[in-house]
Amino acid sequence: MSDQPAVRPAPVSGFPEWLPHVRLVELRRLDAIRAAFERYGFCSIETPAAERLEVLLAKGETSKEVYTLGRAQGSDEGQLGLRFDLTVPFARYAAQHFNELVFPFKRYQVQSVWRGERPQDGRFREFTQCDIDVINVDRVPIHFDAELPRIVHEVLTSLDLPAWTINVNNRKVLQGFYEGLGIDEPLDVIRAVDKIDKIGADGVASLLADRLDQARIESVLALARLRGGVGDVRALGVRSALLDEGLAELDFVLRELADLPEVVADFSIARGLDYYTGTVYEGKFVDWPEYGSICSGGRYENLAGSFTRRSLPGVGMSIGFSRIFAKVLSAGLLDTGPSTPADVLVVLPPDRRRTATATAGALRDNGFNVELYHQEDKVAKQLRYASRKGIPFVWFPPFEDGRSHEVKDLATGAQTTADPATWSRPRT
Amino acid sequence: MSDQPAVRPAPVSGFPEWLPHVRLVELRRLDAIRAAFERYGFCSIETPAAERLEVLLAKGETSKEVYTLGRAQGSDEGQLGLRFDLTVPFARYAAQHFNELVFPFKRYQVQSVWRGERPQDGRFREFTQCDIDVINVDRVPIHFDAELPRIVHEVLTSLDLPAWTINVNNRKVLQGFYEGLGIDEPLDVIRAVDKIDKIGADGVASLLADRLDQARIESVLALARLRGGVGDVRALGVRSALLDEGLAELDFVLRELADLPEVVADFSIARGLDYYTGTVYEGKFVDWPEYGSICSGGRYENLAGSFTRRSLPGVGMSIGFSRIFAKVLSAGLLDTGPSTPADVLVVLPPDRRRTATATAGALRDNGFNVELYHQEDKVAKQLRYASRKGIPFVWFPPFEDGRSHEVKDLATGAQTTADPATWSRPRT
Repeated sequence: MSDQPAVRPAPVSGFPEWLPHVRLVELRRLDAIRAAFERYGFCSIETPAAERLEVLLAKGETSKEVYTLGRAQGSDEGQLGLRFDLTVPFARYAAQHFNELVFPFKRYQVQSVWRGERPQDGRFREFTQCDIDVINVDRVPIHFDAELPRIVHEVLTSLDLPAWTINVNNRKVLQGFYEGLGIDEPLDVIRAVDKIDKIGADGVASLLADRLDQARIESVLALARLRGGVGDVRALGVRSALLDEGLAELDFVLRELADLPEVVADFSIARGLDYYTGTVYEGKFVDWPEYGSICSGGRYENLAGSFTRRSLPGVGMSIGFSRIFAKVLSAGLLDTGPSTPADVLVVLPPDRRRTATATAGALRDNGFNVELYHQEDKVAKQLRYASRKGIPFVWFPPFEDGRSHEVKDLATGAQTTADPATWSRPRT
Repeated sequence: MSDQPAVRPAPVSGFPEWLPHVRLVELRRLDAIRAAFERYGFCSIETPAAERLEVLLAKGETSKEVYTLGRAQGSDEGQLGLRFDLTVPFARYAAQHFNELVFPFKRYQVQSVWRGERPQDGRFREFTQCDIDVINVDRVPIHFDAELPRIVHEVLTSLDLPAWTINVNNRKVLQGFYEGLGIDEPLDVIRAVDKIDKIGADGVASLLADRLDQARIESVLALARLRGGVGDVRALGVRSALLDEGLAELDFVLRELADLPEVVADFSIARGLDYYTGTVYEGKFVDWPEYGSICSGGRYENLAGSFTRRSLPGVGMSIGFSRIFAKVLSAGLLDTGPSTPADVLVVLPPDRRRTATATAGALRDNGFNVELYHQEDKVAKQLRYASRKGIPFVWFPPFEDGRSHEVKDLATGAQTTADPATWSRPRT
């Protein structure tokens, strides 16, 4: 024991970190997400943590939540800030490297983002987003409006979550429907309806009361309440060319995903009013609707208008990995295991370090994660180490020449002879 | 084409990013590193990008290179800064979570770090470090002094690099040898010898000239020049208890790693003078010695003295992944391939979207990464897309009922019938 330490180690609010057994689950889940993205041929990109502030704020974002970088001793470089989402860096990347990319460009990006907002349930200052986008020059096939939620469905399924849905809508349906009702400023109505989750139908109705007559308000709310298919919208009797276009697009998406019961139409969602122009998506936990979205996205007209004159429309979705993971963890629903990736602990017998090292090597070559015990100790102590770390198997190299290897299954207590080069883990 | 874009997209000096075909190689290599660490039972941890400044600077580091976080609108939180290495956050983590960790605690950590220094060859402002450490309460077995360079050797081997070595020394050997020579302030001599790579033996000699007599300088340089084993040091005829202790430790490490020709003794390296107390390591490219270290580390007395009164000695090594990767890339030695992880492009035949989707699904279930072409296009155009992206196989679902699936190998041009559920990739 030395003197009192100089600094108390303490967490920084909004910047979560995990103990090893939780981190191991997080890592495996992030791997599953990457694997799903790659299974559909999307490529990984990563962009720097820092961008020039003029890049970060190019689309008029408020600078309130953006962390800027400084240096105690000052510096001559331009002002830098930490990315607050993965869309802006992706737009800058696509514009900067335009001539070196193959289009349609399909990318995924799994990285931290930072926002200097007040930490609260599900809101962090550092969190991991998993974004997937397809962009193309001038035109993006409708194909991707269905492929993206299929990929995200695969991801959410792999995460072993409590019940969720991916709700789908189409901005053209909303706008076309309101136009069909003779509403002059459909964007204002969309803005009101977008709040229905928070303020309820009555709240939306009173927001619209000084703008629309009662019949139109009823129609607007009737659409927002629908959860069926395209036919139910048509049955409301409203008509417009834009509505037809939106319904055809939505119908394609819903038909393509008809095998996925978690994908449902929801005519109340609008998402990113100034950004999305067609299909929109929003994923939610069924039992925690107030927790907000766990994934979201949609089709946009132009990704990178601030950075290039090329027109780059796209379809994209973003998975709020940290939000999802933290919620499942805090709800006690995360199935965590050991704090080590090791499958096997190899016991170090007295005076037989070389045999033990060779045994561990053979097991590793055989595909296992293996700890070799680190000093000569009583076997009971070595077993206790394995059991404290949750290592499922303990391997005994021969303690004398001419003896066999043995392996002990700590869960069952069974101990059998085995060959490290050919052993396979018994099924549980 | 819209108006002139508002912001020119441009790289930020010192913050590298890669095109997809380079990123794909980077990702696979980082995966190989993680797999090697886990093969030895080390667990992953990640710590937040930001720490309180008092944590970052607890050990008296200069604040010159530390990026601090600010907010355009100000904030009430304490001052935060970005981590500049993985050791300080690890020390804070170990102290903070001490009661929840199992010791010896073996962790790896692969994360970005940030330093506001002048970018130059091999020096970035954002770069990825891969750290691996074992810490224990009060005492760390010598076992790990040999295990860590074995793991790092496995990692460097997996990275497919031009020739490299991991040089090993022991601080007790240096200090004990100088004590045996009757030198009063061995640390000053170590500090001088540590510069031998940069200033040469003559430079070291003149640094020592006003401190030591010619005979002692000769002895100091004789030790620094040695590249053999422990016996060669003994042959120099100097004796001290500390030297004996250091030579015994070094002998253990060298014997344990005798099967690895890239691991060599080097009696000139000292590394982190105030930190390491026993074994020290430094990896270098054989043909680019001036590029500096590609990995380094050693044994330390106390990891977290600034944050806890517990004594936590350890052994650790850090791999400069970005340094290594950037050098191999800029030397034209990186073997890059396609810009997509896709193994197969499934052609979309006219009016058979459902068949094509099912085919892509079957191939994915069969373990392949698959792009489904995104719109009905001439087959020649679909083939051209595959070849521009470097996708090696193109799959033709039946264009009519009753026909077979066929797969074309773009490298050989061979086209054969196949079943998507059972197809296996031909060996090349």
